[in-house]
Amino acid sequence: MQGVTLTDIAEDDDVAVRTGATVYVCVTCRRPGDPEDTQRPGLVLARATAKAAEGTEVEVCQVECLANCSRSLSAAMRCDGAWTYVFGGLEPERDAAALIEGAQLLARAEDGILPWRGRPEVLKRGLIARVPPLDFANKNSKEETE
Amino acid sequence: MQGVTLTDIAEDDDVAVRTGATVYVCVTCRRPGDPEDTQRPGLVLARATAKAAEGTEVEVCQVECLANCSRSLSAAMRCDGAWTYVFGGLEPERDAAALIEGAQLLARAEDGILPWRGRPEVLKRGLIARVPPLDFANKNSKEETE
Repeated sequence: MQGVTLTDIAEDDDVAVRTGATVYVCVTCRRPGDPEDTQRPGLVLARATAKAAEGTEVEVCQVECLANCSRSLSAAMRCDGAWTYVFGGLEPERDAAALIEGAQLLARAEDGILPWRGRPEVLKRGLIARVPPLDFANKNSKEETE
Repeated sequence: MQGVTLTDIAEDDDVAVRTGATVYVCVTCRRPGDPEDTQRPGLVLARATAKAAEGTEVEVCQVECLANCSRSLSAAMRCDGAWTYVFGGLEPERDAAALIEGAQLLARAEDGILPWRGRPEVLKRGLIARVPPLDFANKNSKEETE
C-alpha cells in the first residue's frame, strides 16, 4: 500500500493536501539492565522501520529521546494536517511493519485521525499520547476510543 | 513575561522565526470515580490556563482527549520550529501558570528545546513525551535530562 498522494485527494478541497507521513523512532531507548556496550534496541527498531518503509511514501527519522523512557521503545508519527501520535512498549524485532502500516493509515485518514479500527494492535495498546494538527481549532476532536 | 516576538529574533537568521506557543488542554480528562455530572477537571484547567494566558502571546486551545488518559490531567504545547511536549499529572487548580510559563520558555528557546533548568517542576515530573519539530533532521537532538 502507498500513502495518499497529492493527486489522490486534490479533488476534495475539504481534505488537507497530504504527502506521506513521517515516523520518528527513538534510538536511545533501551531496557533497564541492558549493558552500556550492547546495541540499543531503539536503533534496531529504527533500522528495521527504515527497511520496512522502502517503496512507501513514509519517511523514517532517527531521534534521540522522545521522553517516553519509562515506557520504551518509543516512536512517534505525524503527517501534514493530521494528529501526531506517540507510541511506547514497542519491540525492536516485531513492530517496524506496524509503524509503517499505521503511518500509511494516518496519511490516508481524511479527518486526520488515525482510525482505531484496522489499526495494528500494538498501536492501540501502546498509545501514549496524541497532539492535534497545526490548524486545529477544536474541530475533528473526538475521544480516542473505538 | 511576554513570548518572543518576530522582531526579537529577526536579527539572527539561524533562529526560526517564532510567534507565541500554543497550549492544548484536554477538557475530557477526569479522575477515576468522578461522577459523570460534575464539571470535568480538565475543563477547569483549560479555563484557568486561558485566563493565565491573558496578556501573553500564548494561545490556549481546548481539545478532547490527548490520549494520555491513564496519567491525566493532560496538556500539550507546541511552537513553530520547536519540539512539541506532552505533560500529564496536572492539577486543575494548580498548574495553569506553569503551562503558560513553559510555553513562554519554549517560544524563547533558540534550539527549540524546552530547557530543563528553569522549567516549572510540574513540567519536569509530568513529562509524558516530546516530538521533534517539522524541519527536524536529527539536529538539535539531545537526551531529555538536566
